Amino acid sequence: MSEVEKKLKEFAEYLKKINHYTTAGNLMYWDMTTGMPEAMAESRAETLSFFQTEVHSLNVSPKIAEFIEFFESHMGEFDYIHKRMTEQLKKKYENQKRYPEEFIKEFSLAASRGEVAWEKAKNASDFDVFKPALEKIVDLTKKSIEYKGYEDNKYDALLDDYEAGLTVNKLDKVFGELRDGIVEILNKIKVTGKTIDDSFFHNHFPKSEQESLSLKILDLMGFDFKRGRMDETEHPYTLDMTNKDVRITNHYYENDFTSALFSAIHEGGHALYEQDIPDLLEGTGLNVASSMAVHESQSRFYENIIGKSREFSNYLYKEAIKQFNEQFDGVSEEEFYKALNKVTPSLIRTEADELTYSLHIIIRYEIEKLLINDIIEVKDLPKVWNKKYKEYLGVEPTSDKEGVLQDVHWSDGSFGYFPSYALGNLYGAQMLHKMTKDVPGIYEEIGKGNLQPVHKWLKENVHEYANLYDPSNLIKKITGEELQAKYFLQYLDNKYKAIYNY
Amino acid sequence: MSEVEKKLKEFAEYLKKINHYTTAGNLMYWDMTTGMPEAMAESRAETLSFFQTEVHSLNVSPKIAEFIEFFESHMGEFDYIHKRMTEQLKKKYENQKRYPEEFIKEFSLAASRGEVAWEKAKNASDFDVFKPALEKIVDLTKKSIEYKGYEDNKYDALLDDYEAGLTVNKLDKVFGELRDGIVEILNKIKVTGKTIDDSFFHNHFPKSEQESLSLKILDLMGFDFKRGRMDETEHPYTLDMTNKDVRITNHYYENDFTSALFSAIHEGGHALYEQDIPDLLEGTGLNVASSMAVHESQSRFYENIIGKSREFSNYLYKEAIKQFNEQFDGVSEEEFYKALNKVTPSLIRTEADELTYSLHIIIRYEIEKLLINDIIEVKDLPKVWNKKYKEYLGVEPTSDKEGVLQDVHWSDGSFGYFPSYALGNLYGAQMLHKMTKDVPGIYEEIGKGNLQPVHKWLKENVHEYANLYDPSNLIKKITGEELQAKYFLQYLDNKYKAIYNY
Ligand SMILES: [Zn+2]
Ligand SMILES: [Zn+2]
Repeated sequence: MSEVEKKLKEFAEYLKKINHYTTAGNLMYWDMTTGMPEAMAESRAETLSFFQTEVHSLNVSPKIAEFIEFFESHMGEFDYIHKRMTEQLKKKYENQKRYPEEFIKEFSLAASRGEVAWEKAKNASDFDVFKPALEKIVDLTKKSIEYKGYEDNKYDALLDDYEAGLTVNKLDKVFGELRDGIVEILNKIKVTGKTIDDSFFHNHFPKSEQESLSLKILDLMGFDFKRGRMDETEHPYTLDMTNKDVRITNHYYENDFTSALFSAIHEGGHALYEQDIPDLLEGTGLNVASSMAVHESQSRFYENIIGKSREFSNYLYKEAIKQFNEQFDGVSEEEFYKALNKVTPSLIRTEADELTYSLHIIIRYEIEKLLINDIIEVKDLPKVWNKKYKEYLGVEPTSDKEGVLQDVHWSDGSFGYFPSYALGNLYGAQMLHKMTKDVPGIYEEIGKGNLQPVHKWLKENVHEYANLYDPSNLIKKITGEELQAKYFLQYLDNKYKAIYNY
Repeated sequence: MSEVEKKLKEFAEYLKKINHYTTAGNLMYWDMTTGMPEAMAESRAETLSFFQTEVHSLNVSPKIAEFIEFFESHMGEFDYIHKRMTEQLKKKYENQKRYPEEFIKEFSLAASRGEVAWEKAKNASDFDVFKPALEKIVDLTKKSIEYKGYEDNKYDALLDDYEAGLTVNKLDKVFGELRDGIVEILNKIKVTGKTIDDSFFHNHFPKSEQESLSLKILDLMGFDFKRGRMDETEHPYTLDMTNKDVRITNHYYENDFTSALFSAIHEGGHALYEQDIPDLLEGTGLNVASSMAVHESQSRFYENIIGKSREFSNYLYKEAIKQFNEQFDGVSEEEFYKALNKVTPSLIRTEADELTYSLHIIIRYEIEKLLINDIIEVKDLPKVWNKKYKEYLGVEPTSDKEGVLQDVHWSDGSFGYFPSYALGNLYGAQMLHKMTKDVPGIYEEIGKGNLQPVHKWLKENVHEYANLYDPSNLIKKITGEELQAKYFLQYLDNKYKAIYNY
């Protein structure tokens, strides 16, 4: 074994050690959210925090610096994978090393206090309860930007954490186009004056039947139950321990046909990505997704582009009738499809339809930019929030709970994360454009409930690349073009034109 | 804070660190046995083994030696708890330090190979498949005795691992008396020629209904669902992460009314012990059970002494009729009680009735003694096994599977463990004798389904002492006497005399 091979093996062993901690931590988190006895809460939080600290020290240890130095001095002998491995290792290491230990502790404390304060404030629907904690978090976030540095816009430093290389400059263009395009479609829909009835989705659907339908659709998607499972939780999420254990969680509302089903499809999209990460990237640290936005592109692709397509809707309609006969009494295939795609500008992001969803994100993006660049202050948030909702969506919150307090993200300092959701829509539509060229008959198959061609295409074009490319390079590699809003806008226009006849 | 207080705090922190690893390890084990995706198996085994190694190094680290030295030099200032803490810490440390690292690894490897070989052999019902692996384990076990040392009998060294201070000398007397007493009762029953019908227990009992009955009885026992839960597994066990998270597992057979129910009651007995361990012993290492046998006394107390008593049987009968009306059509209270207590000498330990169960254990004890003292060899095991079953129980295995291969215990080197099961019966009956004196009307309450007085007595007399006393001292403290077989034999005689009218 050469010196390089030896070092690579040593590095893989080191990553394995880190992995022991992270998988154990992930399992503990999963357990915490899927039925852990409540008396265990405090002790579990301590153990989780202990493990996080261990992982952090392993990630910033002198051992890592040693690996980086060695690898950099052997770059000439490396293939693309090991070059990328070295770059990513260095980036992550420097990113974590940049912050003093004291700052990390302070931030983590502020974040956990923030979550508590947010929960309290949301329950009381009173922003003032959250304000002091949020001010602290915003201060620390601004401080973190100083540690990290930036070129043009302070907010760039935050964007880069979630989407490598993304800047305000680029995003302003893309989101500007997206916002104008969506508002235009929304106006066209308004002008038609048409309303869609989706009341039949609110009949009674027993939980166990919803669960078995979700499992059936996951199976159809290609979710591998030997490498994953689905459990019940409060707020659905997907947890990947490794590509061999990917856990979906779901939540059931018995008066809602679509909620759990489309949560399952959404999380299933995330899960397929993780299950498809190739084993051969183990030991390089590249066996993760390219970015949060690319991850979200996969979940939203399945949830909306596939899940709410006319073809899949028709398939779903048949399944729904099979499982819930009388609940859909007198409902036609066409009515079912339209109800799935009903557009209603609303206050709550997580309940938004496919068209208006991105506007919720753009509002948050614009507000975060203002806040981070000191143009507004924390105390201005409710006012600014409500104004933007009025302006873009034509609705205005009457309480903080259904306004500025609805999302958890700010409470733990995840500024810069929100754009990922809307970017996911753009990535997805741009991928769709290429996919339908590569596999012309794909929608026919979807109509038959055959999702294998979709999975195969995403697996080969997205999933198997894991973190071999930054997202901007990945989308170029897949589609030959930079990310742009036009594919998503075209897709939306085609879809809603047919539904609303504008 | 005095120097001593400071060191005690430091020690408590150190134990907490170990506890982070053990609770995470326990959760991973629980997950592995309650639905972990199968593709995760290999990786999970590696993580578990990594954590075990970490725990071992923490347990034998120089830091521990330092704590011991400090505490020993301050024994004069210590109360009973901290003296006991120091003694137990030293005992555990020396016990683990005694074996060279290499030996521990070799043993652990042999044990995991042993389990694999045993499973294979059991499936093939062929002892020869297990023989080489078992020979290795027996060799290493004998070697471990040399490391540990002993006074009279080699087997003493193994007994002490599970029951501090127990010796062959003591156990031969107790088990001799127990064996003769049971055989005598068994013969009296045989002479009556009576047979009991329990066929109605083998009607169809849907799993979900069995589960809800098990949950109901656990609730009755005082199992705290805020500090625990019950899940499904292959072989039921109880796992305690801390006194705040104690997990029972169960397995359902739809053609068997008693299996899951009495598993739940048995595991519930273990779980109450763990849930009742006082918080104040945290940070001392004494917040564990006194011994395996005392643990087993609690589970078997609930399973047999309470669970199969006439009073509780009558209560259970009513509940069973409520939940499974037609399955018990025409069955009387009396028939139900007798069926619960039907005596049938049989081949399989885990299916044995309350009377003959201890004979299964005594057979294993006698065989282990012979093996460890070089009187028989591994190759002789099937023959010796079958001979003893014929002699004590009057039944003879026709295959290794229902004979010498039935238990997992030898495959991982747990020699010396089996006696705990029978000792549990003796502890339990001796406790019962005292309990009925302390709380004269207790059986009346049990008949009403009120198990609170039982729980209260066990909590105050057993559970809350945790590991403050060695088992031999604990039983003296509780009952004023050393452990003896007579209480259990009297209890059995009274019970079966009434049932079989001998
Ligand atoms: Zn998502
Ligand atoms: Zn037990």
